[in-house]
Amino acid sequence: MCAMQMYELIGKKRDKKRLSKEEIEYFVSGYTKGIVPDYQASALLMAIFLNGMDTEEIFNLTSSMMRSGEVLDLSSIPGVKVDKHSTGGVGDKVSLILAPLVAACGLTVPMISGRGLGHTGGTLDKLESIPGFETNLSLESFVKNLSDVGLCMIGQTKEIAPADRKLYALRDVTGTVNSIPLISASILSKKLAEGTDALVFDVKLGNGAFMQKRKEAILLAKSLIQIAGRFKKKAVALITDMNEPLGEAVGNSIEVIEAVQALKGKWPEDLRDVTLALGAHMLVLGRKAKSLKQAEKKLEERLESGEALDKFRQMVKRQGGNPKVVDDYRLLPWAKHKMTVESEQTGYVKSIDTLKIGLSAVKLGAGRERLDSKIDYGVGFLIKKKVGDRVKKGESLAIVFCNDLKKGRWAKREIEQAYQIGKKKTNRLKKILFLVDEKGARKLAGSSWP
Amino acid sequence: MCAMQMYELIGKKRDKKRLSKEEIEYFVSGYTKGIVPDYQASALLMAIFLNGMDTEEIFNLTSSMMRSGEVLDLSSIPGVKVDKHSTGGVGDKVSLILAPLVAACGLTVPMISGRGLGHTGGTLDKLESIPGFETNLSLESFVKNLSDVGLCMIGQTKEIAPADRKLYALRDVTGTVNSIPLISASILSKKLAEGTDALVFDVKLGNGAFMQKRKEAILLAKSLIQIAGRFKKKAVALITDMNEPLGEAVGNSIEVIEAVQALKGKWPEDLRDVTLALGAHMLVLGRKAKSLKQAEKKLEERLESGEALDKFRQMVKRQGGNPKVVDDYRLLPWAKHKMTVESEQTGYVKSIDTLKIGLSAVKLGAGRERLDSKIDYGVGFLIKKKVGDRVKKGESLAIVFCNDLKKGRWAKREIEQAYQIGKKKTNRLKKILFLVDEKGARKLAGSSWP
Repeated sequence: MCAMQMYELIGKKRDKKRLSKEEIEYFVSGYTKGIVPDYQASALLMAIFLNGMDTEEIFNLTSSMMRSGEVLDLSSIPGVKVDKHSTGGVGDKVSLILAPLVAACGLTVPMISGRGLGHTGGTLDKLESIPGFETNLSLESFVKNLSDVGLCMIGQTKEIAPADRKLYALRDVTGTVNSIPLISASILSKKLAEGTDALVFDVKLGNGAFMQKRKEAILLAKSLIQIAGRFKKKAVALITDMNEPLGEAVGNSIEVIEAVQALKGKWPEDLRDVTLALGAHMLVLGRKAKSLKQAEKKLEERLESGEALDKFRQMVKRQGGNPKVVDDYRLLPWAKHKMTVESEQTGYVKSIDTLKIGLSAVKLGAGRERLDSKIDYGVGFLIKKKVGDRVKKGESLAIVFCNDLKKGRWAKREIEQAYQIGKKKTNRLKKILFLVDEKGARKLAGSSWP
Repeated sequence: MCAMQMYELIGKKRDKKRLSKEEIEYFVSGYTKGIVPDYQASALLMAIFLNGMDTEEIFNLTSSMMRSGEVLDLSSIPGVKVDKHSTGGVGDKVSLILAPLVAACGLTVPMISGRGLGHTGGTLDKLESIPGFETNLSLESFVKNLSDVGLCMIGQTKEIAPADRKLYALRDVTGTVNSIPLISASILSKKLAEGTDALVFDVKLGNGAFMQKRKEAILLAKSLIQIAGRFKKKAVALITDMNEPLGEAVGNSIEVIEAVQALKGKWPEDLRDVTLALGAHMLVLGRKAKSLKQAEKKLEERLESGEALDKFRQMVKRQGGNPKVVDDYRLLPWAKHKMTVESEQTGYVKSIDTLKIGLSAVKLGAGRERLDSKIDYGVGFLIKKKVGDRVKKGESLAIVFCNDLKKGRWAKREIEQAYQIGKKKTNRLKKILFLVDEKGARKLAGSSWP
């Protein structure tokens, strides 16, 4: 009977028909319990990938996946809970700055983050480069930390959306990752289960992102906003540029340092722009500011006063890490060797192959090539020249930090190849491209996308 | 590395790209060996189902599937080897008549047949209703029987196209059966492995067939002819009607009796038409006749002379069965009870729901509801009225033969419902609808399809 029902369900989606709420629930709960076998699940995932799902179907898929595990109730914590989710990029350490900063403004930030995926880095991996930092907390400790400190950053526990964990692993090996309905349900099932009231999405777009076409990024953002709305959650998405690494640091320890520097007010302009824009939307959704302008002012004040940095310190301490890393970076793992990538010509940086940069970082040890690879927290890159920067022959484009000289030399060559230097003056990349809310998508002033 | 390669391969087909010969070989041999897991194979099958394959890809898929096991070399047997393959229908006992008839004309017929599938009957199941008849012969005995008798009818052995057996089982539970590339490769990989020189296909079309749309049936026929041609095999396809059972008998023993009666020259017109048309093409392809007309004459002579019946007797004896069944039908298993389905009105048979007839026969015991079901060889139906026949109220439409009265009564009601009787005179159905060869598809004289 079971195989029969699943067979019919696959046939419906294969023939471009809508799946009912009951059918989706049958699939998700059956797959989570191991009643529906992998081979039927993967056939259905491919049919969904190719034939799509409408809003009602994505809503039901998200709901079933969310209810496959525990759904936190944070109503005992006063005030609004707001979270941010990024679709992943290279050098994206925004969460590490944003969560303490927004918490310092009085909001509660319940953040369940992920690990590095493909060529992108993961917030959890970065945090774990802090000696002692624990991301595997019980949901009880998670709620307690939120209540006491206003923020907590953990990984997806066994209790949170187990259906997503199982489906994600299957999608990863069956070519069904890049599907808007499946991505939407995956992101939202986790984020809704963590008990947040509002969500700000950072949908990355460009050669270092999973979405490389503007149309796709906007469709994903719209889908996320629509489904979040169906769950009565306020949500906004920014589509931000990922045609070069964000900020300068790429790695783990090195990104923690850049994040702490940012919390001390010293940060590259692009990282600042993206962080403050996302933070301003979080404050507005969380009713801590009436306008984006007012919100930005508040964020800057909390940076200036040191309250944001203090929140970071509190979080590190609460999660078992050594809070002194904030003042002494030497307490963080660091690579033995350093190599400079020098420009072979004079001109302007025309483009950076960000996927290549991300993949090189992973191969150098900053990410996992296999599920069981160990991360080398101290390795990474410092990206000194960004798109639009003027560069002279012999000047350094980037610095490679490595523990293995052979791998380091290989990464150095990869970075050289990732840079395109032209004679013509090129503009720096604007980072905040589009705003997507329940009213639709709008291009933002200064967006460098056509 | 393995999972990686397969992942990329799925992605290519998902993105509507062509798979290379090497990629297809990797998939087929990897899946047969158990290196490629079911869940990746089913994702690829769904991508093939939805995005299709071109002739080159189907050719390579067929070739890899064929070479996954033994490929017989029948060159030691003099003369041309010709086989027929039907895509399956209800009451289709043509192989049982055709194989001995064509062998009696001097051709060698190496026939690897299948079992009942869904609502359709299987040649092997019918043959096995003959006490002692063995369809599990070694390939060695198969070749010896072919050499000595000119025909042999066996099941797909472990050595023949193991990739097809494994893929077929997976397609069956993942909604990926009805795909022209996958059907073509499945049929041809087996038929080519049996060592035949030429092939005649009987592609069934109508409410009792797997193909219910003319366009699909023609596409499948064209695909079969094209791919067979790529393997340098002469091939022709007839598209024949399956909007009512073929002949009168539906079941196992009962179909063996109808086949033996046919070999004695006593057969319903539609069964005769289809069998002789397919046989004539086999004789022309096998160079035993110069024209279809000459071929039909030869077939009729061999029936008349009793040589065809004698070939059948020889085959039964060689394969361990009791050849006396030919003269004494009481040696075959037979059902205890008999029930008549009476017409509730006077008029003309307008249509027969052949799928319903086929499914009722399966539920009555003539087929398998599960893989491990035992067949009740004696049960079945005799279809007395066909489309276009005049029928009076109270006159019998069909007879149900059953061992379980409750099941018999249920089947009787199903058959009643399968018949549509109208007031208006309706034409009888012509059976031979289209001819498809390397020149394309042609409608045949008298075809009742628009």
